[in-house]
Amino acid sequence: MSTFKYNVVPLSNLIEQFEKLPGIGTKTAQRLAYYVLNIPEEEAKMFADSIVEAHKSIRYCKYCWNITDQEICSICKDSSRDKSMICVVEDPRDVVAFERTHEFNALYHVLHGVISPLNGIGPDQIYIKQLLERIKNSEVKEVIMATNPTVEGEATSMYISKLLKPLGIRVTRLAYGIPVGGDLEYADEVTLTRALEGRNEI
Amino acid sequence: MSTFKYNVVPLSNLIEQFEKLPGIGTKTAQRLAYYVLNIPEEEAKMFADSIVEAHKSIRYCKYCWNITDQEICSICKDSSRDKSMICVVEDPRDVVAFERTHEFNALYHVLHGVISPLNGIGPDQIYIKQLLERIKNSEVKEVIMATNPTVEGEATSMYISKLLKPLGIRVTRLAYGIPVGGDLEYADEVTLTRALEGRNEI
Repeated sequence: MSTFKYNVVPLSNLIEQFEKLPGIGTKTAQRLAYYVLNIPEEEAKMFADSIVEAHKSIRYCKYCWNITDQEICSICKDSSRDKSMICVVEDPRDVVAFERTHEFNALYHVLHGVISPLNGIGPDQIYIKQLLERIKNSEVKEVIMATNPTVEGEATSMYISKLLKPLGIRVTRLAYGIPVGGDLEYADEVTLTRALEGRNEI
Repeated sequence: MSTFKYNVVPLSNLIEQFEKLPGIGTKTAQRLAYYVLNIPEEEAKMFADSIVEAHKSIRYCKYCWNITDQEICSICKDSSRDKSMICVVEDPRDVVAFERTHEFNALYHVLHGVISPLNGIGPDQIYIKQLLERIKNSEVKEVIMATNPTVEGEATSMYISKLLKPLGIRVTRLAYGIPVGGDLEYADEVTLTRALEGRNEI
């Protein structure tokens, strides 16, 4: 659009902004921009305000580094939750995924990434140090590593468990296996091998 | 997200805003919202501003009803363009598509929709009246109907051509046929039939 001869500047600006979003190509960005032009002005204002507002008020919880709009997130604040277990995840969205199960009633720790030397991300660029500090002088007995089942996720998980074990803490990893409702035919070899290895008595 | 127990209000507001966009589901809205949270504050501000700015400054050209930020769009203003031909399209994006061909050097008229009784859109809800008024007392000799090849697009096209013919204006329709680079195997029957009917001597 930017090289388009009959350019309407505010429109191509808006399209460019949408194009910057992950997974949004030129076509989709155009579609979204035209859509935004056609919504009532108050709604467009609300959209714009929600971006600025979210940016202004959202920060990381000082304990678990999850996203919150307070100093301490509502999960860490919740006195009914088990304080002896921490589930370590890569991303705040993973917390949402676990919470949706309604089966986990302990605490989280958000790393905000994984160790990835290829991308120049070392242990100090993610919230590992904060996890160790948090665990010292705490009642935490078990840390569940719930990084993604990728090479980097695995490596990060291994790295952290090596740091935690000397502290006498039980470190566990999410089970590997075939996804519920999945089709065996489409399961990859590695997943199937892991599912075999981890088979349970019925 | 809105029923999520540990709700972070500004974040779920932002997600909701993204969910309103066409073709954006909950998952994508979450991804976009988290992305927006992680960009620098100035960039988030720029994004928000581009929405408000586009809304404020963009209006319809008083001749062709295309999107512009001036009273008359730059295509209608361009003295080098052929004023005897008008290409009638449904949507401003169709203008962009034609302009990309660099083969059409006349004018456009944007209907902003099609006649669609099922959706309660009659001839008065789209810019047909404005097209007729524009053509009267003008040097227009040909109108190319370039609405989408859908049932509604066809019907709108027929409706408009019936109004234009008594004025002694040549009304044409885009050619139907197989898309260039397409695969015959995947062409539907109607398209193939039209391609046969419209076959040309080589």
